[in-house]
Amino acid sequence: MDFNKELSLRTKEAENIIYSYIPKISGKQKYLLEAMDYGVRVGGKRLRPILILETLRMFDADEKVAHPFMAAMEFIHTYSLIHDDLPAMDNADLRRGKESVHKKFGEDFGVLAGDGLLNYAYEIVSNYCASLTDDKSLLASVKALACLAKKAGIYGMVGGQSVDVEEDGKPLSDETLDFIYRLKTGALLEASMMIGAILGGADDEVVGKIESIASDVGLAFQIQDDILDITSSAEELGKPVNIDEINNKTTYVSVHGIDAAKSQVKLLSDRAVDNLHKLYDMNIKKNDFLEELIYSLINRKK
Amino acid sequence: MDFNKELSLRTKEAENIIYSYIPKISGKQKYLLEAMDYGVRVGGKRLRPILILETLRMFDADEKVAHPFMAAMEFIHTYSLIHDDLPAMDNADLRRGKESVHKKFGEDFGVLAGDGLLNYAYEIVSNYCASLTDDKSLLASVKALACLAKKAGIYGMVGGQSVDVEEDGKPLSDETLDFIYRLKTGALLEASMMIGAILGGADDEVVGKIESIASDVGLAFQIQDDILDITSSAEELGKPVNIDEINNKTTYVSVHGIDAAKSQVKLLSDRAVDNLHKLYDMNIKKNDFLEELIYSLINRKK
Repeated sequence: MDFNKELSLRTKEAENIIYSYIPKISGKQKYLLEAMDYGVRVGGKRLRPILILETLRMFDADEKVAHPFMAAMEFIHTYSLIHDDLPAMDNADLRRGKESVHKKFGEDFGVLAGDGLLNYAYEIVSNYCASLTDDKSLLASVKALACLAKKAGIYGMVGGQSVDVEEDGKPLSDETLDFIYRLKTGALLEASMMIGAILGGADDEVVGKIESIASDVGLAFQIQDDILDITSSAEELGKPVNIDEINNKTTYVSVHGIDAAKSQVKLLSDRAVDNLHKLYDMNIKKNDFLEELIYSLINRKK
Repeated sequence: MDFNKELSLRTKEAENIIYSYIPKISGKQKYLLEAMDYGVRVGGKRLRPILILETLRMFDADEKVAHPFMAAMEFIHTYSLIHDDLPAMDNADLRRGKESVHKKFGEDFGVLAGDGLLNYAYEIVSNYCASLTDDKSLLASVKALACLAKKAGIYGMVGGQSVDVEEDGKPLSDETLDFIYRLKTGALLEASMMIGAILGGADDEVVGKIESIASDVGLAFQIQDDILDITSSAEELGKPVNIDEINNKTTYVSVHGIDAAKSQVKLLSDRAVDNLHKLYDMNIKKNDFLEELIYSLINRKK
């Protein structure tokens, strides 16, 4: 498999699906819709929607059921970045090498575009659920929606953001750093794979196993972020580098050093793929691309 | 009926239900949970949850099905006030006579407490939906959830907020003023009555009639707000008065004058109650308290 070619095809595929759910820019609220549109289209790896679809592909299910969730997931991820970039939060002028939403549309529209995307994510999915006539698909979709809300919220991503903001610049215990990583970045990655499995008809046991695989993937992803902040250039990364050191931020790298961080990313990715292999004995289809995707997180440059 | 006594009983009833859904303040994210708790408990008329329950009471239905929606509705209303008060938005230090959330907990936690409440609203309701085993209740609840998301979002409240912010301080056309009123305040009031009806098992025709009744109530409510900004004292209102004039804000009163505004509130309330009466011919139970509640909006002092 030419992984990079496959990845670029699947990124495009996910992007087309996501874009088809972006609300049309019209009406009196069109400035709001423009800001939301800009925030979503400014780019990104689309990793979370890809994880939804690739996890679903391990099951026998109609792929279309994943589409509203892919869009909702990316909209929630995007809203969190827009609010993270606000002056009251990280105060970041750049996101993916371009002006952040509040820089381009004003701080008030940074707040509102984020609110709009978060709410619209739930509008897409709840509308989709309300349109279902088959009881089995309805219940699976509602469960996937409940999973999304839980992992995005105060016991998931928002909870992680809040501790990250509160502890900013302070020395962190291993336990607190782990909490922030698992919630702030990990929770949505977990939700992505879990939603794919739930929509695929997986039972609670399998969904639980997928959750722990995704948890390893999420932690590896976040530690790799810390590594890239030190080893990458601003051009490669599309955002300023050495930000963590400048901000006196405790990271996995600042606590354990760069070599231990690299080994940890490898260990977590290996464990995730091993555990994925164990699922193949449970009548779940092998997904070579998903395995490669998990390994690629170790070698990513941005 | 001693309306004021009844209102205070039902406000307390709604408040107890809402409070039972506030997440427990514990864990590493407890500062976030404190800010959310403060925002919800700082007070309010609890009009939206009361409208959900009182509308449901016109139908034969188990009242408990309304509880998660009452909490979710009040959490969404609260998040919108918290974000409205932010320095980048209305920059209000006071809300209901007390410090606004960002003033007490910091601007970053103004953003995050709002995000947390908005998301938690959907977490409560989607979790509740996922717990339902009866297909008919599941579908009604999912429809109510979709209604909530639509009215809270970019084609509802957030859309109204965005035009309000964008047009701030500019002269407004009647049409734009109407758009802002119907969306910013009206949409959640419409959703409240519609959710009560949907959960009560109303068909689309009845839900549509309820929507237009609620739309009149919402407009009357908003115009009364403009009147109170001029005629009330800061003590009565629990927030500064004459703010609209100071901010050069176009309101129904600034365009049409205070007498026309008062007549309009009366006209809208009368029409809403008339239309409610017409529903009683369609096998829907009379609700004297709901009628009084709608009329009380004309005479309210805060």
